[in-house]
Amino acid sequence: MYPDSIKNLIESFKYLPGIGEKTAERLAFSILELDDDQVEFFSDSLMNLNKNIKKCSICNSLTDNDICSVCSDSTRTSSVLCVVEDFKNIFLFEKAGFFHGKYHVLNGLISPLDGINPEDIGIDKLLDRIEKEKYEEIIFAFKPSIEGETTSLYIKKILDGLNIKVTRLASGVPIGADMEYVDSLTLERALNDRKEVS
Amino acid sequence: MYPDSIKNLIESFKYLPGIGEKTAERLAFSILELDDDQVEFFSDSLMNLNKNIKKCSICNSLTDNDICSVCSDSTRTSSVLCVVEDFKNIFLFEKAGFFHGKYHVLNGLISPLDGINPEDIGIDKLLDRIEKEKYEEIIFAFKPSIEGETTSLYIKKILDGLNIKVTRLASGVPIGADMEYVDSLTLERALNDRKEVS
Repeated sequence: MYPDSIKNLIESFKYLPGIGEKTAERLAFSILELDDDQVEFFSDSLMNLNKNIKKCSICNSLTDNDICSVCSDSTRTSSVLCVVEDFKNIFLFEKAGFFHGKYHVLNGLISPLDGINPEDIGIDKLLDRIEKEKYEEIIFAFKPSIEGETTSLYIKKILDGLNIKVTRLASGVPIGADMEYVDSLTLERALNDRKEVS
Repeated sequence: MYPDSIKNLIESFKYLPGIGEKTAERLAFSILELDDDQVEFFSDSLMNLNKNIKKCSICNSLTDNDICSVCSDSTRTSSVLCVVEDFKNIFLFEKAGFFHGKYHVLNGLISPLDGINPEDIGIDKLLDRIEKEKYEEIIFAFKPSIEGETTSLYIKKILDGLNIKVTRLASGVPIGADMEYVDSLTLERALNDRKEVS
């Protein structure tokens, strides 16, 4: 029914998460309203992503070069390493802009139930790096979960005796949250991690 | 902060209506999960749309050829012409599949307040076509509005005396609508256009 060039674009938009037939149609039609330059830029951006993006050889984050902008930035504190489970989390930190150390991206978290073992998530590379780069503190920025806990404990155990401070992000009630919507696990963690009012 | 190839793709997604920074980021990241083939297809579809799509030289609908699939389909009833204000509406009809006549796309509706006059919406081409192709009925499928009304009346007046039946879509309460949500204009139209129960 649609001309092929519209039909193909609708199919393309349907590749995207949360985009069904109706939205894909609306988006495809909206492309008709763009300038030629914009469509070309969009098209090129898609092709270039696949062509140019690669994993940073040091931290596994994504980069257009061999080494990412954080790893190659000599002004960053090189004594603190923040370990994340997904490269996207680096951008969360970077956007917020308060962390000035380095990052390391694991390939997910240990989850025996899902068949994901320590050797699957690249812990060896992390340990090599910690040993070589002499960090004073390792921060685990995993999501609060059994898998996050397991992974933190597993790595901490290996690091024991190396005289490295090992920390994790605080868990607790998010700023601005309504108390009545806070789940009981979070509340328990917030109570356990309570701080003296000063 | 983001590598250029991710940043450019985020910017591209922000061209789309209703897509802000957060969603654009989410969509750009989702491209990383696609197969190379899919990304290439997506990228090509964008470029091909602009390269291949054009207006049907007969009805102004969009097509990859000179003449659209409806205009070139000799099995369609050639005595009834459905006039729409936007090419997208043709696809609505075609998807529903109950209309077997031809279409004509105007370039919008007459709207003196917005400075859109009869000569701006391609009425000449429509009239030429009606004269040449000898339609028995012209159906206006405009949205129920002052502009739709104005445009219908304007064209009807020109066609007066040509012995062509001129109709418009019925207005009324949509199927499945809750009566309490029907606005008063629609209700008035539905009352005026009431039909005998048979």
